[in-house]
Amino acid sequence: MTHAHASRMLCCVFSVSAAGAMVLHLVPRCSARLFWASAGWRRTHIQGASVGLKWLGCPRDSYNPLACRRYSSVSGSPEVMLTSERYPVQRLPFSTVSEEDLTAFERIIPGRVITDPEQLEACNVDWLRSVRGCSKVLLRPQTTEEVSQILRHCHKRNLAVNPQGGNTGMVGGSVPVFDEIILSTALMNQVISFHDVSGILVCQAGCVLEELSQYLQERDFIMPLDLGAKGSCHIGGNVATNAGGLRFLRYGSLRGTVLGLEVVLADGTILNCLTSLRKDNTGYDLKQLFIGSEGTLGIITAVSILCPPRPKAVNVAFLGCPGFAEVLQTFSTCKGMLGEILSAFEFMDAECMKLVGQHLHLTNPVQGSSAGHDTEKLTSVLEQVLNSGLVSDGTIATDQRKVQMLWALRERITEALSRDGYVFKYDISLPVEQLYDLVIDLRTRVGPRAKHVVGYGHLGDGNLHLNVTAEAFSQELLGALEPYVYAWTAKQRGSVSAEHGLGFKKKNVLGYSKPPVAVKMMHQLKVLLDPKGILNPYKTLPAQA
Amino acid sequence: MTHAHASRMLCCVFSVSAAGAMVLHLVPRCSARLFWASAGWRRTHIQGASVGLKWLGCPRDSYNPLACRRYSSVSGSPEVMLTSERYPVQRLPFSTVSEEDLTAFERIIPGRVITDPEQLEACNVDWLRSVRGCSKVLLRPQTTEEVSQILRHCHKRNLAVNPQGGNTGMVGGSVPVFDEIILSTALMNQVISFHDVSGILVCQAGCVLEELSQYLQERDFIMPLDLGAKGSCHIGGNVATNAGGLRFLRYGSLRGTVLGLEVVLADGTILNCLTSLRKDNTGYDLKQLFIGSEGTLGIITAVSILCPPRPKAVNVAFLGCPGFAEVLQTFSTCKGMLGEILSAFEFMDAECMKLVGQHLHLTNPVQGSSAGHDTEKLTSVLEQVLNSGLVSDGTIATDQRKVQMLWALRERITEALSRDGYVFKYDISLPVEQLYDLVIDLRTRVGPRAKHVVGYGHLGDGNLHLNVTAEAFSQELLGALEPYVYAWTAKQRGSVSAEHGLGFKKKNVLGYSKPPVAVKMMHQLKVLLDPKGILNPYKTLPAQA
Repeated sequence: MTHAHASRMLCCVFSVSAAGAMVLHLVPRCSARLFWASAGWRRTHIQGASVGLKWLGCPRDSYNPLACRRYSSVSGSPEVMLTSERYPVQRLPFSTVSEEDLTAFERIIPGRVITDPEQLEACNVDWLRSVRGCSKVLLRPQTTEEVSQILRHCHKRNLAVNPQGGNTGMVGGSVPVFDEIILSTALMNQVISFHDVSGILVCQAGCVLEELSQYLQERDFIMPLDLGAKGSCHIGGNVATNAGGLRFLRYGSLRGTVLGLEVVLADGTILNCLTSLRKDNTGYDLKQLFIGSEGTLGIITAVSILCPPRPKAVNVAFLGCPGFAEVLQTFSTCKGMLGEILSAFEFMDAECMKLVGQHLHLTNPVQGSSAGHDTEKLTSVLEQVLNSGLVSDGTIATDQRKVQMLWALRERITEALSRDGYVFKYDISLPVEQLYDLVIDLRTRVGPRAKHVVGYGHLGDGNLHLNVTAEAFSQELLGALEPYVYAWTAKQRGSVSAEHGLGFKKKNVLGYSKPPVAVKMMHQLKVLLDPKGILNPYKTLPAQA
Repeated sequence: MTHAHASRMLCCVFSVSAAGAMVLHLVPRCSARLFWASAGWRRTHIQGASVGLKWLGCPRDSYNPLACRRYSSVSGSPEVMLTSERYPVQRLPFSTVSEEDLTAFERIIPGRVITDPEQLEACNVDWLRSVRGCSKVLLRPQTTEEVSQILRHCHKRNLAVNPQGGNTGMVGGSVPVFDEIILSTALMNQVISFHDVSGILVCQAGCVLEELSQYLQERDFIMPLDLGAKGSCHIGGNVATNAGGLRFLRYGSLRGTVLGLEVVLADGTILNCLTSLRKDNTGYDLKQLFIGSEGTLGIITAVSILCPPRPKAVNVAFLGCPGFAEVLQTFSTCKGMLGEILSAFEFMDAECMKLVGQHLHLTNPVQGSSAGHDTEKLTSVLEQVLNSGLVSDGTIATDQRKVQMLWALRERITEALSRDGYVFKYDISLPVEQLYDLVIDLRTRVGPRAKHVVGYGHLGDGNLHLNVTAEAFSQELLGALEPYVYAWTAKQRGSVSAEHGLGFKKKNVLGYSKPPVAVKMMHQLKVLLDPKGILNPYKTLPAQA
């Protein structure tokens, strides 16, 4: 790898056309449309063979997390080691599932209690194939009332529960550590209502993000969030992990766009805060406790969310810069020029591009092509960026096909990395000026012990995805990376988990970003809401001394 | 009052020019600027004689809530009745302030312990002159450490504390009910840092909203919120009450824009979550507990907030519609036509306009003038709204002076109402379709017992401000209004407090918008964070059975 190669940067700017927004477009008089989605619409909205169909009451493969992500892991990869064997973690004294428990569950959700080891295998392993639990039972409720009855039983019996959405998490938060019961939201996939003037969508927690996006697109709205895992991730899981993603820069955090939640508490109590009002200052905003708490304080069963109108036009620019300093200057320039219509600013380094090419056979759209030749759709504003010297080459897309093609390069980096070997993943918030320094620093530090050290992510949000690949998991490499990466981040007053959460794998690093007073208060909240600790144990909070 | 007069509506649309946002504007390379504001800049930023200057360590009149709001209450108005005499409320068994306590406070904040009854009078009465406490001491700390020491003492001594910002609240949350110690944030008014690329502002809780706005305006940014009370309200109070206001439609809730908080807990512990990162998913988001909890769970001492870039151009349209149905259709039309550049959509009824004219001598800008004559700045898009038949007349402003003049009509309604007599205030979220029905319904119900029944507010957010004026407070009129208004709202699944919070006056209506399970959990949180209940007692939560 030459120095020039390593330092070359790519950034991808996604901007909404403001001119388009001025086009006359009369919206019909406001009317609330309440409906329950029939099975029909779902079928028509599903694209891609690897996305499982969602049918109520019949077996399907979508609870296979490897099958239901748009891309699957490398086939023929070795068995994943049990979490309890790789990590120093002790099982807490929960009860184990008995025949009587299974009978009780079967009474609550007849035909939807899964104990077949083969089916369970997929839910016990995370999609990164990095952690593995040994749960013996998967429950697939359809309604909030069923979730409530299940939790009431588990609470009484002191049985631990692992809530599971699309199982697309990055930090081992969505699979059991030991034998926790897996409670899947996969069959809770109904749209409850959509209001076509306010843009407020109310739906069950198990709706797949991409299906919601397609549903909204037909109604001239979009979801306020978009992720690479959209083909599998559930909206409930998105909210439970406070997912960020590709639209964060423009539409902000789920803490602002989620208007209401329905949650089942540890003892089975249903907390109904599923309002669909933009403003409600009556008492404490309890739903915020559950946003981002990774299923450790309650199980989200339904979501009310504010969806923005669909942009009238979309432009994507994919630009090549000589180095990170130029990426930063390009970002500042674009922010100044495009203002509020700039809806995303992502970046990936040359290493990422190389891996996407090598493992997924995607080609670099700007290699060899000069931006100057792609003038027909180029706006005068973007022309100036390209001609400023900050950017060495680039391409602009306005038609849907090319837009998707450019986004795929960014969205599929995770997949390319997982094909490169074992991946050590870090998801860090830093001041943008320091964002790439850690990548360069780490390359020197780990040397040939790593296959690749890459940096990419949401530059506009100050969010770096730092990934280190190796042939296999190695304690020695891990020792070189941790706690070094966390200490480096803490020194810059950054966050050791910008958007992935803490789950199982990062729970012990909480202290790098939060003071002891805060950690203590989090433990108090956990005890208040889940005194027996049955909800997603071994996750989010470090074990108490 | 003729029927035609009553049904005539005015709506005011505030839109950001998208074309302006495309103007080339190079931002310098990103750099974090850390500084402590000197006294100098503050002086230059203050406009209007009634806004108190903020000098550290010397007496000033800005803790007089009547003087520091941009407009003052009617002079010569009668003495405000003590809250404890008007309402059925019992003092809780807190200690009373002793000489030893005063000595201890004087040691912590020398020269800033106020016991002069005349100075205290202003802090004991809310600006609406509707509730009055009888506190004997006002404390004016400058630093978080001082707040911490004060609370540590109060907690040990079981002394109740009433945190006070600009004292501009609508629900009696900012003044004591009995003899609670008043802890004012007025001297905690320093900007800590501003980052001119990310737009992240970090400041102390006592900064006045308008001063922050002016500070940011010079740096080409704006605050994400704007309120009529901006000349007096403190950012800490804004966050503690989760204030909404005039920019909510465009920039969303403080729950999304507040990035970090520093809070002093009931026992004096400092909780430092004052990060300035856009993304941070490490553990539970504790700051959310304090946003909107009205000082009952902790005292906010510093705020980190994301500020949007200053719009390059602003247009305001002020339109007259024959009735509310046409206002709704105009809203739908504008939303469709203007999309994301529509940053506010406010409305006021003809009664409001009448009172603003009568009490403040402001004139209706569209009376007698035809929109067709004001064509030079009219965009083709807005021309279409005016020519659609939905709008009978209107005016458009692009220059700053006229923009401010039009906004003043909307912003000063509260002031006009307070000059009309005693005001019964309701702040309600409703589905937009039903928003004005309650006003019409109530006019019939209360008949001549009220002077005026008016409706105005943030139509774009589904937020109605319903106000009923009378010569004086009357139990009979109150009985006609409550619980009728709350029950009506609950039936529509609305919120009985959209943005004003519950404070003292609305705490008992929480149950109309939140289920018993939620209310119970709120009480549990209060007990967890403030076991002695010393923080802003008698507020937000109903007394427990």
